[in-house]
Amino acid sequence: MLSKPHDRLAARFEAKLDAVGALIRARMESRHAPRIPEVTAHLVGAGGKRLRPMLTLAAADICGYRGENDEKLAATVEFIHTATLLHDDVVDESSQRRGRATANLLWDNKSSILVGDYLFSRSFQLMVETGNLRVLDILANASATIAEGEVLQLTAARDLATSEEIYLQVVRGKTAALFSAATEVGGVIAGAPDDQTAALYDYGDALGIAFQIADDLLDFQGDTAATGKNIGDDFRERKLTLPIIKAVAQADATERAFWRRTIEKGDQQDGDLDHAIALMQSHGALDSARVDALSWAAKAGVALEILPDHPVRDILADLAGYVVSRIN
Amino acid sequence: MLSKPHDRLAARFEAKLDAVGALIRARMESRHAPRIPEVTAHLVGAGGKRLRPMLTLAAADICGYRGENDEKLAATVEFIHTATLLHDDVVDESSQRRGRATANLLWDNKSSILVGDYLFSRSFQLMVETGNLRVLDILANASATIAEGEVLQLTAARDLATSEEIYLQVVRGKTAALFSAATEVGGVIAGAPDDQTAALYDYGDALGIAFQIADDLLDFQGDTAATGKNIGDDFRERKLTLPIIKAVAQADATERAFWRRTIEKGDQQDGDLDHAIALMQSHGALDSARVDALSWAAKAGVALEILPDHPVRDILADLAGYVVSRIN
Repeated sequence: MLSKPHDRLAARFEAKLDAVGALIRARMESRHAPRIPEVTAHLVGAGGKRLRPMLTLAAADICGYRGENDEKLAATVEFIHTATLLHDDVVDESSQRRGRATANLLWDNKSSILVGDYLFSRSFQLMVETGNLRVLDILANASATIAEGEVLQLTAARDLATSEEIYLQVVRGKTAALFSAATEVGGVIAGAPDDQTAALYDYGDALGIAFQIADDLLDFQGDTAATGKNIGDDFRERKLTLPIIKAVAQADATERAFWRRTIEKGDQQDGDLDHAIALMQSHGALDSARVDALSWAAKAGVALEILPDHPVRDILADLAGYVVSRIN
Repeated sequence: MLSKPHDRLAARFEAKLDAVGALIRARMESRHAPRIPEVTAHLVGAGGKRLRPMLTLAAADICGYRGENDEKLAATVEFIHTATLLHDDVVDESSQRRGRATANLLWDNKSSILVGDYLFSRSFQLMVETGNLRVLDILANASATIAEGEVLQLTAARDLATSEEIYLQVVRGKTAALFSAATEVGGVIAGAPDDQTAALYDYGDALGIAFQIADDLLDFQGDTAATGKNIGDDFRERKLTLPIIKAVAQADATERAFWRRTIEKGDQQDGDLDHAIALMQSHGALDSARVDALSWAAKAGVALEILPDHPVRDILADLAGYVVSRIN
């Protein structure tokens, strides 16, 4: 039996995911500019988990949808996601993603910017084809939250004054806004009542936040072999993630000087990572962040309760538990 | 009396343009990320002519529109235009626009990319608020044409094999797609019949193409004092504009070697610009491009004929003549 919730979704929606894949390939074509499918295929073919499209298909299925607009919306969210990755990698000057060279490295920043714009406009065409204004409203708002979150991350980065409230805004932009839009539009396209579409929004929002906090924690205490992440990457990149924000909030003068030197100024020495982890432990920052992640996962599970009884609903509930199982 | 058609439009729509300006200021706000209004205000305040929003207001007026959605759509096209400028300046590594330092120079490329994305998502929210699916379809298609044209320009740049057909695609992406969307949505929002909205599309498309070809020509024969452009800027930046494409199509072996050296390889010496102009003259390339610009302007004027008799229609007709008056 397939145990990971993600694999169970993939198995259940195999035929629909094939249709989504075909739609993505068809829509990334460009008669005149072959650079577009080249760059897109590099990313889309790079073994992403297709989690976002599956969330849309799952939500529509739970709410009894039987048409094909769920496939269009699944392709839409994957296009938005891919466009965001292209722009992110330019902004972060990344050279690797999912173990492969990034598009900005293989081609150039210009191609990543413009192909990202193209994919965003293609996603826009796809969602208009559904003819559903509420879907368009949800995705327009999600796009604005994503873009605002990215700018906020840029300006709040390395600023020790960053609050947990700002952190949540950034996380919603980075992850949760597209998760919640993906689930909500699935319900909307199925014609589900408002309390159900609101529950689907809440589920996606909480799932995305739980996922991101868990990711932050794994950077300080993960098993490199299991996660594929190196311990301390975020610290070395001077990212103000939730455990650090919590530790900074309780720092005395000496500790503040340490965080200022390592995060704000970026002057890091051997042993600083160990010291940072020790500070976070002494203030209970890691435990507190873990509790936050578990609470958000629990909130995601509770949100599902008002949805119709459905095997896919059970998989989504398991998924909420799964994203925090890595830190539990 | 105000003679320039552009000034006559600005005078006629003064109140509506104020409302559009207020809408733009309100929508570029960000509660959390002050970088967004900073960057946007720099561009929006930089004395752009607001030609695109005026085209939308004009088209709606001619077709008898009396509501306020034309203001939302005018702000939408200005946001799309501004987002495009931000990304263009990063891609072109520009340091000046309209005589001022570009945002990528004043802040950084990251801010320009992400604030551009934000403005695009804001434009998307604005157009959704009109609740008109046909408007959304038109603007989604225009966005795709713009983005595809930009990628095409990137890959076709400096390639002597670039045909006039490819050039037209690039120009549609660069200028004409947003002009034609701006005029068409004005008619659609007014509930104009299909033949009128098609005519408004044709007008905007032809106006944009005429405008761009005229701009290309002015680079080789303009009056620097009047146009504010330096003669030969495009040549020095190795841009394959229409006059060069026409000259290359008729080049003998020696001439091809000259174009390959100056445009493809970028190895330019004193006297090359004069020689390039002489080659274009000897093949009638400048005259031929001028005829093309005048034909597109004429096409724009003819498109207006089926629209209702209206003083604003007459101003639009004058505008078509005006964009090519600089080269006539």
